[in-house]
Amino acid sequence: MEIEDKIRETIAVYLERFSAGDREGWLALFAPDATMEDPVGTELKHGRDEIGVFWDESRSLADQIELKMVQGPAVIGNEAAWAMEAHAQSGDMRMVIGTIDVMTFGDDGRITTMRAFYRPGDAQVV
Amino acid sequence: MEIEDKIRETIAVYLERFSAGDREGWLALFAPDATMEDPVGTELKHGRDEIGVFWDESRSLADQIELKMVQGPAVIGNEAAWAMEAHAQSGDMRMVIGTIDVMTFGDDGRITTMRAFYRPGDAQVV
Repeated sequence: MEIEDKIRETIAVYLERFSAGDREGWLALFAPDATMEDPVGTELKHGRDEIGVFWDESRSLADQIELKMVQGPAVIGNEAAWAMEAHAQSGDMRMVIGTIDVMTFGDDGRITTMRAFYRPGDAQVV
Repeated sequence: MEIEDKIRETIAVYLERFSAGDREGWLALFAPDATMEDPVGTELKHGRDEIGVFWDESRSLADQIELKMVQGPAVIGNEAAWAMEAHAQSGDMRMVIGTIDVMTFGDDGRITTMRAFYRPGDAQVV
């Protein structure tokens, strides 16, 4: 498979596993030494252990989080960017926030760096 | 004005001037030594002269190009990312292409680096 096809597959599965609450399947999409900056401007997480802590913290805030693609992904070489929405449900409250994700990938299609552009304060109650 | 407000203003004016065909007004939004990678994966343009050549080449392909914001911008510190669509008209033909722009800005709100994620082949005739 061409690298760009591999990356498109990784991104599709990334949204699916995140939305399904599949922690281990989602973490497996990252290279072992991947870095994550989520949101942009916060401290970099290094490696799957720290990224797993991020998952646990995110999930403690909501019963369910669904990621929906809005535009893209635009995949060029080993890089990609796209716009999506995160729809979170916590009890009876539903919130949505738009995010732009920018990632780089290894030749095996796994994520090597991830940056998420959004402002937590921009979440809207829906 | 806070830096993030300056940047939001720059981005709004960027779309307006680009869509209005205001070459000099659009170029003035870039720092003199700004770099542009449009699309990602192509050779970096350095400075307003080279960015002006890019403008001229883009405009030679279409009678009019309108930029429409789709999601964002997410502005965090001196960085921003957003999703937009470029609607191009050339004679009777209309085309649209989605793009994710990622930029950094100086403290005066001018653009210092610009990267545009899109694949020219993904343009759709509408």
